[in-house]
Amino acid sequence: MALERVPEQRPELTTLLERRWSPRAFDWQHELGSEDLGVLFEAARWAPSAGNSQPWSFIYGLRGDETHARLMPLLDEGNQRWARRASGLIVTIRQLAAGPDHDLFGADHTQFDLGQAVAHLSIEAMAIGLHVHQFSGMDRPAVAAEFGVPAHWEVTSGIAVGRIAEPEIFDEQWEIERERKPRDRRPVSEFVFAGDWNPSASSV
Amino acid sequence: MALERVPEQRPELTTLLERRWSPRAFDWQHELGSEDLGVLFEAARWAPSAGNSQPWSFIYGLRGDETHARLMPLLDEGNQRWARRASGLIVTIRQLAAGPDHDLFGADHTQFDLGQAVAHLSIEAMAIGLHVHQFSGMDRPAVAAEFGVPAHWEVTSGIAVGRIAEPEIFDEQWEIERERKPRDRRPVSEFVFAGDWNPSASSV
Repeated sequence: MALERVPEQRPELTTLLERRWSPRAFDWQHELGSEDLGVLFEAARWAPSAGNSQPWSFIYGLRGDETHARLMPLLDEGNQRWARRASGLIVTIRQLAAGPDHDLFGADHTQFDLGQAVAHLSIEAMAIGLHVHQFSGMDRPAVAAEFGVPAHWEVTSGIAVGRIAEPEIFDEQWEIERERKPRDRRPVSEFVFAGDWNPSASSV
Repeated sequence: MALERVPEQRPELTTLLERRWSPRAFDWQHELGSEDLGVLFEAARWAPSAGNSQPWSFIYGLRGDETHARLMPLLDEGNQRWARRASGLIVTIRQLAAGPDHDLFGADHTQFDLGQAVAHLSIEAMAIGLHVHQFSGMDRPAVAAEFGVPAHWEVTSGIAVGRIAEPEIFDEQWEIERERKPRDRRPVSEFVFAGDWNPSASSV
């Protein structure tokens, strides 16, 4: 599927990356079992981080459970519309300081590290037949308050995870078309440089 | 190899993630070809990012070329010691503003997004038989000056990439032992919560 949606000539990636994308059409019937859930967080766990600091934590809710019901209304309406069909919601949280009475970290790699942990989780999801759609649109301070996230940790992003479904599950034509829209990225020549940083003179 | 170094009972990850770690022992003889290089950056290219903003760029040098020679002295000495054996060095750079005369991005997801792009590159490296070791220890302002990185982009981290070698390539016993040290992470129960954020009451 990914290949059809990327018609240009390009090097093919390893399967898990080649097929990865962020659908909004999730299978309403699929349930996320504890074994799958365990392996997703195990993948995040083993991500690399600066000084092995592992500055991440996660809150998750599964469709139908209490945590899910507390989380869902805190998402932006546009995200609720599709994310409610996903099997699970995960809140990503990064560490800002060593403890509640400590200064903020100086060289702050925690967003970078959290991004890597989430990428590892996403790629593991592909490996067990699931897809992930990340989003930032939610009331992050409200999530922090609702779940008692302390001030030295920061609610950073959300992840919907589940089994991908056909776009026709959506009622609206624009929602169906959005799922089929070709994926698009800047060419490598615009962001990779063999010497000086210079988008107009790049060669790889 | 990874399994031997993680003796505890735990769910097994997909192969590319299970085997991933950050060695310092790289094969001095291995050369990174342009096809491999292309697929590494292609993997970074297709990473997800907030609003598909793709706020990343990269400078790379290959062992023996001019860019590599300009980069190497800007690494911390401890990193130079092992990274010089790797086949390539990559500098990761994140976008801080839309252009030189623009305000800084408000909601700054660029470190998070860059982290994901680097994770995708790292996992693609595993898929083509390479390993990656990320580091932050380098004179980042000096790298920016040396390669003309504009003020609205920020040099963020470094990546050494190459083929893994046996730890015995090192002269010093402590360097050999460092390569064999068991890997360690916090247990999932300390950072994953099914409801309120509470490391002492977690269950997954």
